[in-house]
Order: sequence, then C-alpha cells, then structure tokens
Amino acid sequence: MASARRFLSKRALRTPQNGFEDLVPLMKDPRNVNLSGGVPPPSTYPMLTLQANLKDGTTVNLSQADTELAQRYPPFAWGKLRNWVHSTTQQLHNPPGDWGVSITAGSMSGVDLVFSMLLNEGDKLLIEEYSFTASIDWLVASGIECMPVHVDNNGIAPDALRAACEEARASGKPAKAVYVIPTGQNPTGTSLSEDRAREIYKIACEYDLVIIEDDAYFFLQHSTALKKDQLVDDDIDATLSGAGSFISMDTEARVVRLDTFSKVIAAGFRLGWITAPKELIKAYDGLAYFSSQQGCSLSMMLLGSMLESWGSEGFQKHVKELQRKLRQNAQSITKAAEEHLTGVATWHTPSAGMFLWVKLTQHMDPKQLLQRMQDHAVLGLHGDFCTVRHGMSKDDGSCFLRLSYVLEDPAAITEGVRRLGGLLRAGGSEA
Amino acid sequence: MASARRFLSKRALRTPQNGFEDLVPLMKDPRNVNLSGGVPPPSTYPMLTLQANLKDGTTVNLSQADTELAQRYPPFAWGKLRNWVHSTTQQLHNPPGDWGVSITAGSMSGVDLVFSMLLNEGDKLLIEEYSFTASIDWLVASGIECMPVHVDNNGIAPDALRAACEEARASGKPAKAVYVIPTGQNPTGTSLSEDRAREIYKIACEYDLVIIEDDAYFFLQHSTALKKDQLVDDDIDATLSGAGSFISMDTEARVVRLDTFSKVIAAGFRLGWITAPKELIKAYDGLAYFSSQQGCSLSMMLLGSMLESWGSEGFQKHVKELQRKLRQNAQSITKAAEEHLTGVATWHTPSAGMFLWVKLTQHMDPKQLLQRMQDHAVLGLHGDFCTVRHGMSKDDGSCFLRLSYVLEDPAAITEGVRRLGGLLRAGGSEA
Repeated sequence: MASARRFLSKRALRTPQNGFEDLVPLMKDPRNVNLSGGVPPPSTYPMLTLQANLKDGTTVNLSQADTELAQRYPPFAWGKLRNWVHSTTQQLHNPPGDWGVSITAGSMSGVDLVFSMLLNEGDKLLIEEYSFTASIDWLVASGIECMPVHVDNNGIAPDALRAACEEARASGKPAKAVYVIPTGQNPTGTSLSEDRAREIYKIACEYDLVIIEDDAYFFLQHSTALKKDQLVDDDIDATLSGAGSFISMDTEARVVRLDTFSKVIAAGFRLGWITAPKELIKAYDGLAYFSSQQGCSLSMMLLGSMLESWGSEGFQKHVKELQRKLRQNAQSITKAAEEHLTGVATWHTPSAGMFLWVKLTQHMDPKQLLQRMQDHAVLGLHGDFCTVRHGMSKDDGSCFLRLSYVLEDPAAITEGVRRLGGLLRAGGSEA
Repeated sequence: MASARRFLSKRALRTPQNGFEDLVPLMKDPRNVNLSGGVPPPSTYPMLTLQANLKDGTTVNLSQADTELAQRYPPFAWGKLRNWVHSTTQQLHNPPGDWGVSITAGSMSGVDLVFSMLLNEGDKLLIEEYSFTASIDWLVASGIECMPVHVDNNGIAPDALRAACEEARASGKPAKAVYVIPTGQNPTGTSLSEDRAREIYKIACEYDLVIIEDDAYFFLQHSTALKKDQLVDDDIDATLSGAGSFISMDTEARVVRLDTFSKVIAAGFRLGWITAPKELIKAYDGLAYFSSQQGCSLSMMLLGSMLESWGSEGFQKHVKELQRKLRQNAQSITKAAEEHLTGVATWHTPSAGMFLWVKLTQHMDPKQLLQRMQDHAVLGLHGDFCTVRHGMSKDDGSCFLRLSYVLEDPAAITEGVRRLGGLLRAGGSEA
C-alpha cells in the first residue's frame, strides 16, 4: 500500500520539526528542571476549581489538579477527551489499518487544517454541488479548483462522480480529493447508503482520491435503519453504527474523517476530532501546532470530564433525546411544507441532520430574498451560499433555500414555513 | 491615506461574502422566525450553569442565560470579552484612526490568520533574526521568503532593518511586512524603546511595510520605566502604558497588533485579540469565519465574566503580582547565570517577558544538546528552533539557548542553570 504522505500539500510537507516535540515527554519527568516553558507560573493562574451544573441534575466538578491542567496548553488538558474520542471511534467505526485520532478546535477549524494539509492552490477537488457554505468559502478563498458533483435524493451520485474524475483525468490534471458530507448532508439532508458509500470508495481507489469525510450530522440520524430516506416515528434505539462510514472501509489509507461535538452537544465547546491514517494525523498535528493548537484546554477538560461522568450510557441517552426532538421537528417542517409550500417549491424528506432543502419554482437572488424574508419575518439561508458556483441555481431557472428545523417549538417552525409560503406566493405575483 | 486593503493577501481578497453576515443581526430580532440556524435546540444543551472558584476567594457564576450563550457559536458569547478588550486597548494604546478589535483563538491562531490575511507564498517578510519558533514554522511551511534582521540588546536594529528594506527593493521584490515582538522579545528578552519604535515606524512608512506587532509579553515588563534593559527591585506600579507600541503611533493604518491572554492570565483559555485598521479587522473576521471562529465560546464567556467581575482594579492587581513573581525569577536566573555560566556563555539581563537568551561559546546541535540536557536533567529550547535560518548559529561558531524563568520555585531555576553550567563545561572538554 502506497504511503498516505503522497496526499500531503506542499505546506504540510514543508512543516519543520517542532522544537517542543522531543521536549514535551521529558517535561513530564519530575527529575528534569524544565527551563523550556513559556507560561506564567501555575500559582498565578486565576481559577482554583470549576463546576458545571448539568440539566440532568448532576454536577461535573473539576479538581484543583484538573483545573490547573485546564489552564495550561492543550497537550496537558486533552487526555480525557482523547480517550473518549478514540474509544468511541473504535466502537462505532472500527477503522482498518494504522489509524489515529486528533482533537480539532471545532469542525470548521478541522476542515481548515485538513484542507490545508491536503490541498495546494490550483488543485482539483470534487465536491457535492451543494455543500457546507463555510467549507466552500475556504476553497474559493484558497484558489482550489472545485468540480461540483451532482447530488440526488440519496446523496452524491456515483455516476456523476466517476464522470467528473474522468473529465479531470482527461484534462491532464486529475482530481486530488473528494469532500463529502455523508449523513444528513448540509444542505440537502440526504444520506449515503452503505452500498453507495462502498461504490464511492471504490471510485476513490480507482482514481487515487483522498476522501475528506465531513460527518458532522452522524449522530443525528432519523432512523436506526441507517440513513434511509424516511422518518421513523417510534422510539428508536439510539445506538448508532458507523458501518457505512468511509473510515470504516478504509483499507487503502485514503480517508480523513471529521467529527464534531457542535451538532451533537453544543457548538460553544468548539471541539471535534479527526480520524485518519497515522501519517496524516502527524501532519495534522504539525499544522495545528502553529494555528489552532487543537482547541481550548478549558473546554477539552470540561467536555472530557462531562463525557467521562456520563459514561457511554449517559451519552447515548443524550443522543437519543436529541434525535427524538429533531425527528419530531423534521416531521413538523415536512408537514408544514406540504401545507404551505406545495406549488411554489419542492423538497424531499430529510433522512438525518437539521435541514430541509427546498427548491423554489421562482428564482430570487440573495439580497431580494433577504429583503422579502425581512418583510415577512422569516429567515433561511439562500442556496447560492451553498454552492461553489455562486448563482448556479439561476442556470436552470430554479433557486434553493435551506431551512433548518432546530427551533425549540415545532409551532414556530410551522409558522416560519407559513410565512415563507406567503412571501413566495407574493414573490411569484410580483415577478 | 491609502487603503489598508492594499496589504491583503490573495486569500483575503478572494474571501466570498459570508452568507450569515446579513442574517445574524436579524436573528436577534425576536419577531423573526429563524430557520437559518444549524445548532441543536438550546433545551438539549447539557450545561445549566457554570461556576469558577478563583484563588482570590471570589466566585464567577455564569447565569443560566450566559451559560446558554456560552454553548452557542462565538458571536453570541464574546460580548463581555470584546468590551473589555476594546476599552483596555483604548486606554493603554489609544490608537489613532479608524481602528477596531477582534477576538483570536489564542495568540498562535491570531498569528496564523494575520499572516494568512497579509502574506502570499513567495512574499518577502522581515523578521527578527531570532523569533517565536511557531511563527517561524508557519512562515517556512507557507513558503514565505523571510529576511532575518539583526537584533541588538535593544531589540530589532533600525539600521539593519533599513538595509534589509534596501536590499529587498534593489532585488526588484520589495518586502511586504515586518513581524516584530517589541516587548520581552521571544527569545532574546529585549524590548524596543519608544524612540526606537518610532524610528522603525518611520522606516515602515518609507518602504510601505505593514507592521505585524506581536506583543505577547506586553503585560510582563520588569520596569515601569518601560522596557529598560534592567530589572527594578522595588514594588512598582503595575499600571502600564502602551505609549511606545506601534499601534499607538499608527497614523498610516499599517499596523496589526496581537495581544494574548496566554502570558498574562493562562494559556488554557486560548484567547487573545488583534487591534488593526477596521478594513483589516473585517478581512480577519472573514478568514476566522472559516477556520478558528475566533475561539471557544465557553472560554470567552468565562474569561469575559471573570474580567468583568475583577474590574480594572482586580486585573491590575493580578498583573502586578505576576510581574513581581517574574521579576524575582528574572533576578534569580541572572544571578545563577553569573555564578554558573560565566566563561561558557554570555547573556544580557532581560527587560521583560519570560526568557534569558544565552549565547554558548561552543556549538552543539539540537539533538546533541537535548541528549546532554537529558543526561544532566535540565531542559531548554535550542536556539536553532528560534531562527528562520535553521542552524545559522553555526556560521560564526556560536550557539544559542533559550532559558525560561517561569518556574514556581526560584531555587529550581538556579539548580537548572547550575546543571546547564555543568553540562556545558563537560561538553567543552568532550568536544
């Protein structure tokens, strides 16, 4: 098997040896007098202990020792969280080969460093025709040549992917990577079946692509029968399986998987993790050292301690409740769409995640739409922000809108969709 | 005055409009139904309240409302911290012109985004011949052409800077920026006087350089008579003045200043801030949106609340205690150096910061030195990691070592220097 290092960008390959790499293990030996540190003396750190009172009635207490570590640089604070992340990944995805994990300072920081680790300016990247707006912005700003690939109701389409690979190869400059959001795709709400994922993995092997698997919505599946295009009403078992994930089938060391706590716990922790072949983890750590430092120590220690105190059972309980809530909301928005958007838009039922992706029959540009939304007091994200071809939806006269169903109150979601229906009908008559 | 936009990198200039920029203000109006969010419903956030017990006996309690905001994305959580940062900068530096501040996810993340905002691959950057190791690694990895500039006992030397600017101009490719650590320079421990800083600012105007002012050690000055090359024994007033900072004299909108909480409070918060002309703040925010997101919400809310509860007086008390501690330690290490390093190394008394920069009379490469240090149970950072010319110290047969004096116990610092003296003498006889 070829080394995964062939995927590294110039930037990753040029990263010098970190001067502290060899020192950190020695710092932990109390016999050594450490004159290499660059932090205030711990006695001057302001916090003695920290206490988080959880909504479930329990309390997470950080001891004096842990609170001190939480005020140091991340490598002293991430132990508990890394343990959780490693064992959870092992349990859910059980990746083959020589893999590792590393903490990210939130999903977007992870995407930032993974792109930076793999892509040079001018490289060709395959991407779902509608994708995560901030990732798109990164790619556009960094001069990556993006090739949009068709997404149908079951996620990125293998035939379209193969055709794009062929086109790139024929141009003399093959594609380097494919960026995929496999579950509850943002913004289309589609999910890949295990079979389709295997087909895509096979194409990646054939065209020597690295797969960047951004699975932010993995924990938010609306069905245990993974990723089916339907909602399940009854009380499901929250135990998830990562059997269909790319990392779970990565026998060729060509997958970098991104997970995040933002969508399954809270965005304010700014934490997530990557799973990848060890050679790529090393490169990621190198780039993180002179940028994100992999996130906030305080947050790592709090979250790590909370997950430890929850145990596997507590986490599953949390996921289950969140899933139930989002599934109900997804039902509300789908029902509201049927009632209020029929005739002015089309959509399909989301299989996972947070979004209903609606195709308007009439085009409105982002500014015009925002104005109308203000007038009708409802907010959504215009589809033009969700594609590398800004304004592409104009080409066939259609236009998209991403509606989330994360509001607390299902009645508010319904009301929002009702208002949207109103403005679309009004828009139609004005156009 | 020319627009500061002329300093922006291709990456910053290519950054697309953020789809949420126009939406965020509307989200705050409760009349709007917000179907644009992408976070779990707040009722599912795990934490109800947070409590930090400080060493000064006080407690910082985050209310339910603040704890909820701390679990959302950073723009909902950074209010208190931004207010503190803005008023503190105004008070200390009082920058002229149309300036603003923005939060960074720690100093290194700030450096990452500021470099990325200003520099293209192949650009020429002027940098102190010895500088911050992680910044150097960023520059090397990113293919920036670095021109090292001589540092004397009073910081970066204006004559050398001017000569480098001339050399670059004569080559047909002028330098774009200068990266300076003005106070308690890392690693040399030198500080710029106000006069020298003004001279450097004048050169920057003459050669149209943007100044990247990384003032991580600003709060750790060993003398109120700012930045003098001497330690002050007596109990000084901790009130600092930013009169000599580049941002304080920036009438031409060419300075980006970086501050950090890592050195004055604790690195675990992973927070700092930049101060810059508003046009550059906007570009920074654009890049941060698809990478750091400006840091951790939880950390912002905790630190912001702590600083608010401390008030100006509490912060000054903290700074004063930290300064006193580091000043004592600086005296200990200087005294220990006189006793144990005379004859095998030279140094000068640090004026601020955390480091004693010693020049060894005998060269040892990093691996050899690390081995000797292990044998003698003392750790320091080899100077080769502190220069863009890795191994440059070999050229004149000399070699540097960065020793920090941040350990809790001054006796341990003395013992470390004693061990170092021992290994250097042994090294001399073995060489």
